[in-house]
Amino acid sequence: MHSPGDKDNGEIEALIQMMSRLPGLGPRSARRIVLHLIRRRAGQMAQLATLLASVAESSRECLACGNVTQSDICPICQDPSRATGEICVVTDVADLWALERGRAFRGRYHVLGGSLSALDEIGPEDLRIPELINRITDENVTEVILALSATVEGQTTAHYIADALAPTQVAITGLAQGVPIGGELDYLDDGTITAALRARRKF
Amino acid sequence: MHSPGDKDNGEIEALIQMMSRLPGLGPRSARRIVLHLIRRRAGQMAQLATLLASVAESSRECLACGNVTQSDICPICQDPSRATGEICVVTDVADLWALERGRAFRGRYHVLGGSLSALDEIGPEDLRIPELINRITDENVTEVILALSATVEGQTTAHYIADALAPTQVAITGLAQGVPIGGELDYLDDGTITAALRARRKF
Repeated sequence: MHSPGDKDNGEIEALIQMMSRLPGLGPRSARRIVLHLIRRRAGQMAQLATLLASVAESSRECLACGNVTQSDICPICQDPSRATGEICVVTDVADLWALERGRAFRGRYHVLGGSLSALDEIGPEDLRIPELINRITDENVTEVILALSATVEGQTTAHYIADALAPTQVAITGLAQGVPIGGELDYLDDGTITAALRARRKF
Repeated sequence: MHSPGDKDNGEIEALIQMMSRLPGLGPRSARRIVLHLIRRRAGQMAQLATLLASVAESSRECLACGNVTQSDICPICQDPSRATGEICVVTDVADLWALERGRAFRGRYHVLGGSLSALDEIGPEDLRIPELINRITDENVTEVILALSATVEGQTTAHYIADALAPTQVAITGLAQGVPIGGELDYLDDGTITAALRARRKF
């Protein structure tokens, strides 16, 4: 349809398509965002590109807890005031961030990276559970808080970890009131998360 | 709170904040997108950064019509099969894209870049209206379709352009049925836009 030598808008269309595959976005919202950015191409768009490239290059998993970080050890694990002997076990980083927004927990985290699932063939070695067991002795941990989602997979994982940690004599607690059955941590409001953390109970 | 020498997650937080300012996104959806990208940092995230940088660098306004493009003249203006003598005047690029999705129009476009507004001190020179008048004679235009939003500003702009083009004897039409009063073009479904374009009436 175009004459030879034409340059089409291939990259703009590729950008819209790539944006539309991001979670929560579709073709319409992606087009809107791309147009918004092209209008600010010298400022906001160039900055966003630089920041994305930099974070893509520098971000990694914290060697201690599995949090997303830009150094080998994340800011939470580096913070000496958080060496409280409490480790809060979460399914993924989104849950860690949700708990941090609640500001009720002042210990450290351990990100499992998923839930046990026989169906998806996800076993304990796939989930950083061995690393958790090592941390119990290495870091003088006195309490492990299992802040896992109130789903079947989450509770299966919690029971597995409680059994695995039983020989270490560490106190094991779980989030209490406020977590609705079938709900996912990342979607809870901060107040509910805070209340659930404060009223945690013996597992 | 952190010990000296700490590297915090400043760029990750800056990225979330920048994402949350994009149209249609907020803090929660921005966090979700950034986590999604960091999990795919070597692939999708790096590609997105490269594409954003490339589009930010190469995109510009078509010298003829004002469309967003990666060359001096956009693919539509370069396409000889679209030299039909019809120019469709739109408020902004989002409206041009909406009309293109309808696939009913085979002529060329003219993007005004906004609507006349005494309140915001936007006059004809701010809107590429002089360029439109030049195109009428330069391109042997026989019909100008005013595809402007059915808002007060859109219709004010349409009347101004119709008056300005009266001496040129060019036929002036406007979108007909289907455009809801107070509605904006970019939010219409493709079928409605197509119907409105097919049933365009003498302005």
